[in-house]
Amino acid sequence: MCTIGGMIANNSSGMRCVKYGTVRNYVLDLEVVLADGRVIHTGKKVLKSSAGYDLTRLFVGSEGTLGVITRAGLKIVPFPKTRKLILAFFDEADIASHAVIKVFSEGITPSACEILYKTTLSVLKLCNSRLAIAEEADMILFEVDGTEISTDEAARQIAEICKPLALSTRIVSGLEMQDIWAARRLVGAAISQLDPHKTRVYMGEDVGVPIKEMPALIRRVQQIAGKLDIPAMKYGHIGDGNLHVALFIDVADQLQWEKLRLAADRIHRAALDLGGTVSSEHGIGLARAEYLMEQLGWDAFSLMHSIKRALDPKGILNPGKMGFP
Amino acid sequence: MCTIGGMIANNSSGMRCVKYGTVRNYVLDLEVVLADGRVIHTGKKVLKSSAGYDLTRLFVGSEGTLGVITRAGLKIVPFPKTRKLILAFFDEADIASHAVIKVFSEGITPSACEILYKTTLSVLKLCNSRLAIAEEADMILFEVDGTEISTDEAARQIAEICKPLALSTRIVSGLEMQDIWAARRLVGAAISQLDPHKTRVYMGEDVGVPIKEMPALIRRVQQIAGKLDIPAMKYGHIGDGNLHVALFIDVADQLQWEKLRLAADRIHRAALDLGGTVSSEHGIGLARAEYLMEQLGWDAFSLMHSIKRALDPKGILNPGKMGFP
Repeated sequence: MCTIGGMIANNSSGMRCVKYGTVRNYVLDLEVVLADGRVIHTGKKVLKSSAGYDLTRLFVGSEGTLGVITRAGLKIVPFPKTRKLILAFFDEADIASHAVIKVFSEGITPSACEILYKTTLSVLKLCNSRLAIAEEADMILFEVDGTEISTDEAARQIAEICKPLALSTRIVSGLEMQDIWAARRLVGAAISQLDPHKTRVYMGEDVGVPIKEMPALIRRVQQIAGKLDIPAMKYGHIGDGNLHVALFIDVADQLQWEKLRLAADRIHRAALDLGGTVSSEHGIGLARAEYLMEQLGWDAFSLMHSIKRALDPKGILNPGKMGFP
Repeated sequence: MCTIGGMIANNSSGMRCVKYGTVRNYVLDLEVVLADGRVIHTGKKVLKSSAGYDLTRLFVGSEGTLGVITRAGLKIVPFPKTRKLILAFFDEADIASHAVIKVFSEGITPSACEILYKTTLSVLKLCNSRLAIAEEADMILFEVDGTEISTDEAARQIAEICKPLALSTRIVSGLEMQDIWAARRLVGAAISQLDPHKTRVYMGEDVGVPIKEMPALIRRVQQIAGKLDIPAMKYGHIGDGNLHVALFIDVADQLQWEKLRLAADRIHRAALDLGGTVSSEHGIGLARAEYLMEQLGWDAFSLMHSIKRALDPKGILNPGKMGFP
């Protein structure tokens, strides 16, 4: 959960950014209070401008370290007339990723493209008795939106593309679709329900890689969690190459805390190794500060730091975040 | 005409950005040579990242004043299967703008949404004998793309929406569509053809306003050109609120040069007055440098300048551009 200001400061996104873009694409202009108290406007309420540096995009995702966002002009889009969901079940993560790439290559842009890996799907089914899903497999949820005619066509096309690759596919809408989305949104809550004594916590990672590297990332995460013997639930925005990994430990067990830190560290390094990012949509803050320099390289990191110093010479804005000294 | 590097440095766009976004939306990462010779990479080849300041977007549109872009990772999209064009002719600029707003409000996103005002259309017809357009009016070109089924539906919907507002509408495709686009692309060349002695030049302006202010902008431009007695051809990307104005003068006439400067100045100020930008897609450079501070306000301009100083303390990168002292 977050506020509009928080969404902008973290360049947040979510399930529908695969079609609609992240917050960055929706901010027309910002009012920002600078470190010295001056108030600036970063742009105009126009759809297109090429007039000076893109200050708006500099503040989007800056996590409060360059200024305090006090007002924002947002672009809005009409609510779609119809939505449909295509469920596709796969034997292997590799094949699921391949199906996703084939759908996009055909010029189809789903309004959401999510994956729930097998164990995550099982947990969701345990906790949501209304979920009418019998399959035990990796599940991809493709959503399409638009007019009745265009969603019908896109849903049929996606099902056709997936058919030769999938164990099964089906198109759902209405209440059944709503139930599935409601369950998907509560992955975190479902996980907690499995632990009635509340002694276990989970830490959610947010790594991202080029889509073609998703199967490799999944394999690495499985190896890491397996070796350290930590349960890991995997799900994510596969259409953007963004994988969430929920790692579970018992809060009372010191050894498990150490394992958790080690697992998280290895997952971040695996993403970097595959040409990816340690955060696709959650941001850096304190938790991922140690990886930012590694991801960017020293020169790009020090460039960021020189921008930070130019805008906040006294270091009073959200100090300590992003790993700036 | 420009190179990929030039497009990125100016955050250029064009007719199809109304659906597909400007260059900013297509750059995944950049290799940039900084003022001190260091080479940085601004990001990773992932579709989504929230890891530090958006250096990529800072360099997009920076007009070579912060670093030299030497390599770029671009997102590409599949070529659409079909395109169709809806021509709609209007009596008044106000009604044409209203039709555009209605189309977008219905959730339809055309792949292009262009306007050719009456005199511009006449010139195009004079220079392109193959253009089968009898109407003398303000013309809007809506293009839709996608599958056969979805483009058919969207084209019908747009024609329906325009019908009660327009003098006439029709849907074209194939060769007829290609001829119209070819003519539209050569507006500038057509203008020159009218002047066999080549004594006249035109200066193209690139102002942008919120779409709802387009009729007001058109009225102001007509008044400005009328009072100064300078021929002005108006056309543009109305779906983005971007108006191009081509102003004509005789190069040999000193008085006309002065009038031209005055007209351009007034057009820029009219755009600012209507909450707009002095450049939607061409950039600031030298020609519009004097307006940048006015558009941004002193504090935002000086913030840009402090970024410039932090990245290029000796001022060796494209000096004099954007009005930095």
